[in-house]
Amino acid sequence: MRKLLIANRGEIAVRLIRACAETGIKSVAVFTDADRHALHVKKADESYSIGPDTLGGYLNMHRLINVARAAGCDAVHPGYGFLSENPEFAEACESRGIRFVGPSPEVIRRMGDKVAARTAMIEAGVPVVPGSDGNLERLEVALETAEKVGYPVMLKATSGGGGRGIRLCTDPASLERNYERVRSEATRAFGSTEIFLEKAIVNPRHIEVQILADAHGQVTHLYERDCSIQRRHQKLVEIAPSPQLSEKQRSHVGELAVRAAQAVGYQNAGTVEFLLDRDGSFYFMEMNTRLQVEHPVTEMITGIDIVQEQLRVARGLPLRYRQDQISRRGYAIEFRINAEDPEHDFLPSFGRITRYFAPGGPGIRTDGAIYTGYQIPPHYDSMCAKLICWALDWELLLSRADRALRDIGVFGVKTTIPYHLAIVNHPAFKTGNFDTGFIAAHPELTQSPATRSDRNVAVAIAAALAAHHGL
Amino acid sequence: MRKLLIANRGEIAVRLIRACAETGIKSVAVFTDADRHALHVKKADESYSIGPDTLGGYLNMHRLINVARAAGCDAVHPGYGFLSENPEFAEACESRGIRFVGPSPEVIRRMGDKVAARTAMIEAGVPVVPGSDGNLERLEVALETAEKVGYPVMLKATSGGGGRGIRLCTDPASLERNYERVRSEATRAFGSTEIFLEKAIVNPRHIEVQILADAHGQVTHLYERDCSIQRRHQKLVEIAPSPQLSEKQRSHVGELAVRAAQAVGYQNAGTVEFLLDRDGSFYFMEMNTRLQVEHPVTEMITGIDIVQEQLRVARGLPLRYRQDQISRRGYAIEFRINAEDPEHDFLPSFGRITRYFAPGGPGIRTDGAIYTGYQIPPHYDSMCAKLICWALDWELLLSRADRALRDIGVFGVKTTIPYHLAIVNHPAFKTGNFDTGFIAAHPELTQSPATRSDRNVAVAIAAALAAHHGL
Repeated sequence: MRKLLIANRGEIAVRLIRACAETGIKSVAVFTDADRHALHVKKADESYSIGPDTLGGYLNMHRLINVARAAGCDAVHPGYGFLSENPEFAEACESRGIRFVGPSPEVIRRMGDKVAARTAMIEAGVPVVPGSDGNLERLEVALETAEKVGYPVMLKATSGGGGRGIRLCTDPASLERNYERVRSEATRAFGSTEIFLEKAIVNPRHIEVQILADAHGQVTHLYERDCSIQRRHQKLVEIAPSPQLSEKQRSHVGELAVRAAQAVGYQNAGTVEFLLDRDGSFYFMEMNTRLQVEHPVTEMITGIDIVQEQLRVARGLPLRYRQDQISRRGYAIEFRINAEDPEHDFLPSFGRITRYFAPGGPGIRTDGAIYTGYQIPPHYDSMCAKLICWALDWELLLSRADRALRDIGVFGVKTTIPYHLAIVNHPAFKTGNFDTGFIAAHPELTQSPATRSDRNVAVAIAAALAAHHGL
Repeated sequence: MRKLLIANRGEIAVRLIRACAETGIKSVAVFTDADRHALHVKKADESYSIGPDTLGGYLNMHRLINVARAAGCDAVHPGYGFLSENPEFAEACESRGIRFVGPSPEVIRRMGDKVAARTAMIEAGVPVVPGSDGNLERLEVALETAEKVGYPVMLKATSGGGGRGIRLCTDPASLERNYERVRSEATRAFGSTEIFLEKAIVNPRHIEVQILADAHGQVTHLYERDCSIQRRHQKLVEIAPSPQLSEKQRSHVGELAVRAAQAVGYQNAGTVEFLLDRDGSFYFMEMNTRLQVEHPVTEMITGIDIVQEQLRVARGLPLRYRQDQISRRGYAIEFRINAEDPEHDFLPSFGRITRYFAPGGPGIRTDGAIYTGYQIPPHYDSMCAKLICWALDWELLLSRADRALRDIGVFGVKTTIPYHLAIVNHPAFKTGNFDTGFIAAHPELTQSPATRSDRNVAVAIAAALAAHHGL
């Protein structure tokens, strides 16, 4: 592999470019008109325009492949989101002699189909949530199945993911109401009417396991992440390892994940997501056949560079570390810094970053796409940076995270930083014992006095700086 | 401990403030007029002026103690340099009921006297370089001793340190020439005429061991650092662990350091410095009774926050980790980013930082005192930031360091960044096998074509950015 097309933008594009630089691979960025001044454009070895976003932007396979060929790329990394789980894109690349950094199109397709994935897991002996055997063709079948597994149930788009195309149904009436709604949502979002249902695990923990697998039959896991802190099915804060697993549960879920990956002949990096219920049972939820936003917390505890391993596997090389060479140390936490206003229902707050101060000192990592003067375009996701903290134990991590969230400075737009500060200082969070209902159960997080006064201090500092520098 | 006076400036003051924030201690900064806009002033909970630098600045004990008392501080941390190894300051603090974060004045005094330290080591069975039994009162004694141990010899100021007050003498004539020179240098720099001599170990490796010791009799080591990359006795690049020690040598030197600390009843953090000669023998050089510039590389490999441990010990608490709980992982390297021009004999390059871009991604830590718009004052040391990189093995570390040195951006002043890039890409450095003669042996490092073209790229980017933002 000599030259890699980065078929993405934002912080993950910068992350991939860094991995290229560390492995002697030339990086080629693409950018839409809105992203002309984006950081990934400045950091890459080469950058090419893919025109206005109206032409499909980072979803325009044809254009991306043309750039890859014109620039002489022999591989493409899709990052996350956009085309990262699109089997047609993987196929289109491979058919033109461009290596797709990820699993095979067949595996992407199979795991992307939630019903097929479920079937594969049942065959492999990986526990799944009780639910429908396949797609629900008619409302009647849905009602029968729900009766069998017991309410509440989750109605899900078979091609869904990322928290979209999913509804909770508490009784037959709500199932009837949601049936057509999810079908049409699925059609609009994923181009498929297929839906299925599963028993709803109320307020489970979201536990996911990072997997690495090579072309030489080696499948390893890099321990788990706890992504229970979610707002409306969107992850906000991720932790590795989970502070709420026993060592026995930890090795059990790791083995389940390896079994899941082996069952489908998985290659490259992937994540097997599980629900953990109150009784301590794990249920397979889905497999993400790509790099994840939260991969840095796993890198922090294991020391393994997941993107570098992805590139190795795509080159046909064996993984650098066998399972018995993989160890973990301490705890890591990632905060998604979104340009959103937590006090106004997390409305996007796009605009110019007037000042950005990166945090520093021990145990801090930033993966960001922002810089002083950067204008966050309204076309894309509001996540503009990630703050990752590490410490030897959970209590030290909490105090370090609090410090780092005060240390970082993002001015000019509203961000989720004060909200994260309220989370890490919340007594229920500090126990390390929380589930996916945490955010909904604590509306007071948006009115934390601590975060208010912090913000005032921040504004005062910003004003003083601006005055001093004559801005 | 509720409130800590930070009796220092620059990156180490910021580092200490971060440790305070993580341990629930209020931080109090002091600043001279020249440092009015320094980062440590902005980051501390409270900041107090200590007037113009002509009043002694960070060396004015009286003023510092007055601030500590007025602000209600119950402890003071001296950082490194300035008053950090001044026993009178430690005494003055303690006599006013202010805890000095460091060893006792007696230990500082004893280890600061190179001859007394040497004697203590000989008594403890820690090997020292053959040399004079005590201070050299007359030139004749110096000549006799040199004849006995054999030329070349090092003539050293007894109160010296940090590479000052030290001369290499290759024969009796040069010893005669240097005798008065070092005496008067010692008088000017350290207020003492006392000097001694040791056999010169030609181009040794500089290996130092980080020590932590508490008031409960526990002394631990946190492995060694390799600081062989020095320019005129000033450390430039530091590595942990040393890539050139066998496991046997590593545990041997660790034990020697613990023995040295125990011998003098050491408490708090300290560093025992050794020379390693071509035959694999270690010789005690000196003990630094304070936090060191390069402590972050040890933090990166052990995960232990050395400053937090210092604060614990000063509070009378036991160390957080026993020796058998301390492990190391991977390799870390620190680059001192000095505002100096490597192409013009490292002349200081003070001035305004027009743009600063912090590096990010996996394995990167920055400890800095700079920000966009910051004016580096000419009054103090030229070191304005440290870039620390970590990776699971030496080869990965080299490529990551190369990437990070290209990732970081400091514009407006000349820095040692291009010089560091030339070092990490030098074949002799990459082997991991180098001694303190490395820099002198490779004058081509200042003319590396790679660093030249990098600088051009950097200038082009800076110009483009400036144009874009209308600066």
